[in-house]
Amino acid sequence: MSTDLHPFDRAVALSATGVPNQYQGTASPDYWNMVGPYGGITAASLVQAIQQHPQCLGDPLSITVNYAAAVGPGTFEIDANPVRTNRSTQHWLLTITQPDAQGQPQVVTTATAVTAVRRQTWSVSDMPMPEVRAAAEVERVPPLFKASEWLTRYEMRFVDGILPRDEDGAERDSLTRLWVRDNPPRPLDFASLAAVSDVFFPRAWLRRAKRVPAGTVSITVYFHAGREELAAAGDGLLLAQARGQEFRNGFFDQTAQLWSQSGQMLATSHQIVYYKE
Amino acid sequence: MSTDLHPFDRAVALSATGVPNQYQGTASPDYWNMVGPYGGITAASLVQAIQQHPQCLGDPLSITVNYAAAVGPGTFEIDANPVRTNRSTQHWLLTITQPDAQGQPQVVTTATAVTAVRRQTWSVSDMPMPEVRAAAEVERVPPLFKASEWLTRYEMRFVDGILPRDEDGAERDSLTRLWVRDNPPRPLDFASLAAVSDVFFPRAWLRRAKRVPAGTVSITVYFHAGREELAAAGDGLLLAQARGQEFRNGFFDQTAQLWSQSGQMLATSHQIVYYKE
Repeated sequence: MSTDLHPFDRAVALSATGVPNQYQGTASPDYWNMVGPYGGITAASLVQAIQQHPQCLGDPLSITVNYAAAVGPGTFEIDANPVRTNRSTQHWLLTITQPDAQGQPQVVTTATAVTAVRRQTWSVSDMPMPEVRAAAEVERVPPLFKASEWLTRYEMRFVDGILPRDEDGAERDSLTRLWVRDNPPRPLDFASLAAVSDVFFPRAWLRRAKRVPAGTVSITVYFHAGREELAAAGDGLLLAQARGQEFRNGFFDQTAQLWSQSGQMLATSHQIVYYKE
Repeated sequence: MSTDLHPFDRAVALSATGVPNQYQGTASPDYWNMVGPYGGITAASLVQAIQQHPQCLGDPLSITVNYAAAVGPGTFEIDANPVRTNRSTQHWLLTITQPDAQGQPQVVTTATAVTAVRRQTWSVSDMPMPEVRAAAEVERVPPLFKASEWLTRYEMRFVDGILPRDEDGAERDSLTRLWVRDNPPRPLDFASLAAVSDVFFPRAWLRRAKRVPAGTVSITVYFHAGREELAAAGDGLLLAQARGQEFRNGFFDQTAQLWSQSGQMLATSHQIVYYKE
């Protein structure tokens, strides 16, 4: 593999195995998190498989990714199955598998996705970009944790709700706003937009000022950007916002929005996250 | 089937076919919408299949349902496959199929779900129930459309954002708040909570005061209530809130929340919806 590729392109590279609907990838050390690859890069690999599939109709509209187990080091197989193709929408069932100690494939990720051919219609935003400090006025921060390699793959400038420095248990709201983009900058596409939708540290760490064990169980991304809006966003910083809704008995959910620097809504996202204690 | 069952219980009744993971149901005339069953009752049938499965671990935590095609009249088959079982979570892949004219099963719905064994932890809400008029002070409205039978299956009392009476194209915000419950009242369970999460008429109809063709493509429900919270909600009215985020080139998304009358968050939900023009 050429080393002058962007780390993101190396991470999501897939090859067709010859088995129908099956692609092989390699878990990326560049995007390693605590016990497996960053969840966003797993979502991006699934988007990549769909877009690489010869029968793919249109562009990504929605994807839901369920993290059933940590993806381990080495290769994995994606099964991307277009189970229903309509006139302008297509429905996908996806799994990621890795072999267990006995060599039997085990499901580590499940997903569904919808792709669609989009047409210009009446359009409006009911959630305009909040007025925040311009990206250039906000300090770029070093990676929040050195142990999580994926953090070095993003440029982050926090406007609101950075991770509390002290784990003092003081309760606050769970709103984070940051300017963010790939590091180094890379033109936005559907796969990298899926990846960055998972960029937020766990809301429980902010809400409680306490870094309890936590991990995403399921994430959904709705793509509002088409190719034109992605091209217009280019490699500029995005404003990313996330807010927790309910923290209840071991799981919390968040809603998230991502706008281009010019204020175009590119994607909305939600996830439900496991937390301990 | 006994006729003294609640219409909801009749609608979600399933029988095991003898094929592993397969259940058969019948599209319910009681919950008929324009061209097929109400999307919420389809989601509820999938929850029912999971809970009826002999290997089910824990209670529903999240479900994503993708409406690939209208479910037609008559019987349908659900395949509910627990593809990964961990210590306290379980991951499901689901499809609904119906035979085409040649008798070949065609996928009409895809879904993923997660069930979980939940434990008491630190818990808090970051989205408390808004202060609204008490249910008893809000007028109960007759079904918004006589052609949609499912509307008669819900008691609805709109606090904010009822469907505009006049299709005058006047633009407004897309927020709806209503008190709602099954009609006749029925104790809440996971399946009926999934169903009511889809109770909102399309946000585009409110935002534009124009009833363009529209239909849900994908809905996700996160269950914050466990069995105790469901039991406490009983058959009381729920406060249901939905708001559109982005309306862009044929698709809009919404976020939704459902609280019990005492202010307990029971579920959050989001969907992406096709609209024309």
